[in-house]
Amino acid sequence: MVQFEIHHRLLGDCHRLGRLQLCHLLLHKNAVVPWFILVPELDLPGDLFDLPEPVRRLAIAEAGTAVRFIRNELDCDKINFAAIGNIVPQLHLHVVGRRPDDSCWPAPVWGNLVDTRDYTPARVRAITDVLAQKYSLKSC
Amino acid sequence: MVQFEIHHRLLGDCHRLGRLQLCHLLLHKNAVVPWFILVPELDLPGDLFDLPEPVRRLAIAEAGTAVRFIRNELDCDKINFAAIGNIVPQLHLHVVGRRPDDSCWPAPVWGNLVDTRDYTPARVRAITDVLAQKYSLKSC
Repeated sequence: MVQFEIHHRLLGDCHRLGRLQLCHLLLHKNAVVPWFILVPELDLPGDLFDLPEPVRRLAIAEAGTAVRFIRNELDCDKINFAAIGNIVPQLHLHVVGRRPDDSCWPAPVWGNLVDTRDYTPARVRAITDVLAQKYSLKSC
Repeated sequence: MVQFEIHHRLLGDCHRLGRLQLCHLLLHKNAVVPWFILVPELDLPGDLFDLPEPVRRLAIAEAGTAVRFIRNELDCDKINFAAIGNIVPQLHLHVVGRRPDDSCWPAPVWGNLVDTRDYTPARVRAITDVLAQKYSLKSC
């Protein structure tokens, strides 16, 4: 069995929080906006639209888990959702919480987010704990 | 019955091609990349993740129609898909065909596409005709 590997660019950019049923859940290290990245554990290459419909539906449902976390726990209603993958070919989904007072608004974050701020290790642990307790996140 | 209206910013930015079962299909006027925008005809406010699951599934399936058109008719495999809506609050989905030789690559188009090129009216008609003949597009 070949071990599934998350692309090194994603691992470099993100904290690895755990996994849902299908997807690994990552948190972008830039804390200026709440930015989750979901990586389905699949052997299949290709875009979101290449997935078999039930698998695509599950991947999007799990993106919905990140949406609910952002809305319920971070009091942030507006969501930007995207599947881009121009740089990292491994399929991954972006779920980004946005506010009119964030420093990138109204531009989308991709290619436009200039400010940076780090999460503290305690904050990453706290986010992970809430995701595990209330949103079915499992450890990797 | 209140007439459904597409947001004026989308109408200004796009050619209106027709409609699918749920969504109006628009083509961004900037021909540098093939860029479709789908606007579900719904009374519901909110993001993609606020839609009832069967409606969201249909909206994404119709985005898949734009994906198939881009891949089959324009010989362009890479797709960027997004629901953003930071400027236009009306729910709309972006389906963008990308190539390593387009002038914006690898940046996502939103906020980063500087070059512009217009479609000819004949080209818009030809795209509309193929969508109608092979991809179930109806006139508005």
